[in-house]
Amino acid sequence: MTFGERLRSAFDTGGNLCVGIDPHAFLLAQWNLTDDPAGLREFGLRVVEAASTRAAIVKPQVAFFERHGSAGFAALEDVLGAARAAGLLVIADAKRGDIGSTFDAYASAWLTPGSPLEVHAITVSPYLGIGSIEGPRAIAAANGKGLFVLAATSNPEALALQTSRMASGSTVAAGIVEEVQQWNSADAGLGSVGIVLGATVDRGDFGITDLGNIPVLAPGFGHQGARIGDLRALYGAAAANVLVSASRSILAAGPSGIAAAIEQQAAEVAEALAA
Amino acid sequence: MTFGERLRSAFDTGGNLCVGIDPHAFLLAQWNLTDDPAGLREFGLRVVEAASTRAAIVKPQVAFFERHGSAGFAALEDVLGAARAAGLLVIADAKRGDIGSTFDAYASAWLTPGSPLEVHAITVSPYLGIGSIEGPRAIAAANGKGLFVLAATSNPEALALQTSRMASGSTVAAGIVEEVQQWNSADAGLGSVGIVLGATVDRGDFGITDLGNIPVLAPGFGHQGARIGDLRALYGAAAANVLVSASRSILAAGPSGIAAAIEQQAAEVAEALAA
Repeated sequence: MTFGERLRSAFDTGGNLCVGIDPHAFLLAQWNLTDDPAGLREFGLRVVEAASTRAAIVKPQVAFFERHGSAGFAALEDVLGAARAAGLLVIADAKRGDIGSTFDAYASAWLTPGSPLEVHAITVSPYLGIGSIEGPRAIAAANGKGLFVLAATSNPEALALQTSRMASGSTVAAGIVEEVQQWNSADAGLGSVGIVLGATVDRGDFGITDLGNIPVLAPGFGHQGARIGDLRALYGAAAANVLVSASRSILAAGPSGIAAAIEQQAAEVAEALAA
Repeated sequence: MTFGERLRSAFDTGGNLCVGIDPHAFLLAQWNLTDDPAGLREFGLRVVEAASTRAAIVKPQVAFFERHGSAGFAALEDVLGAARAAGLLVIADAKRGDIGSTFDAYASAWLTPGSPLEVHAITVSPYLGIGSIEGPRAIAAANGKGLFVLAATSNPEALALQTSRMASGSTVAAGIVEEVQQWNSADAGLGSVGIVLGATVDRGDFGITDLGNIPVLAPGFGHQGARIGDLRALYGAAAANVLVSASRSILAAGPSGIAAAIEQQAAEVAEALAA
């Protein structure tokens, strides 16, 4: 089973909401948890439990676990194990990037079946060239895993770099989307390599037109200003391939409110896609 | 003491060679070490021991430790602790990048005094915009720590992206160098924010001219083709600010040959700078 097939099945059974697991220090305090590996573990496990019957996809943010070193990673491993055991599709938001055998090592860390940090997909950064991702792509494909390549992100300070023009005339972001399209061209259904495309960006600024069968991980809903109800207007025919990423707007509901917050946002996403 | 001052002092006392700690699987096998956390730890500690009296700077490659999950990070913490205790200046080659409070979390993980992964500087990726690095820069400065921002790297597949033209007319890589120059403009001596600039790149391709007081982490020597003897020809007046990064050409000497390999390359770097 390819990652694209696995992701389509997750969409079909549990919808397009992607629940962030972002243990910010201020959220840990709000949840009455300690800002240490035990607090991270508890936070992550509670989000997994609330998500398990109400959504299909979770996305832990690695930075907050890395902040506590190896003990933070041990907490993350427990959270990932619980998420996999609950049947959730897990995307590690790691934004790793490097070259050659070093980038392969990152891909192996996260995408090897049985490895302690095993997930279904990771986010990767293309600053070292879209070609630098060839090795991780091969590792992902061999293991039925996926990648989400940063393309056009939702933060304003990224615009200057991501709209830069390559010698080919394409913007940097559009060049990435074109290459990912090619990678996915052999897939009959949803592709196995996705992109990160912020919900708040104007794709016209980047010259990004056709998204084809690319899975789109879309931050920018809720806290950052995009509205779930606008999903069809924002992505057109590609809306069914969008992972609607929501973190703070769910996590700020606290341990007693998170289940209801996930249910409500999942329903909102389903309604927007049915429209 | 700023990171720039600390780095200058390292150059003055121990030279400009930066010894990579890259436990590739093939090197672990060559060293008769197991490809597991115990093998990584032993490999790292032996490199630190050999470097401690023969060089001033080491650069562990995080990907190879991450490959073994939390236990790999625990091994890395031991290696970092030994390197700090030996008085080495330690740069974690992590290439982290993100936005806002998430990028701050990565900076805190590596640059907070007393944190388990504490080092003197980390490499960071600017794909999310050079402005995304403002938070980590503030954290680094507050702690007397440093950053090395990826600018123009030594791998050929990076050229298309890194030579793209921003609306300002600068290439992406030159835009990063210009911004880092500004960040360092208040520093009387060596700046505290460096760049990664491959020794094999033609700076003309990127429109990078003046390097000012920017510390330059330069991979590309040895295995990738650049010659240490060409240091002055490659970097001109900035040669004294270059960290000559060497990994495989030293590590392939094996446990019995590594001390001599470090001595020889350190001498070669000193000779090239004295020329």
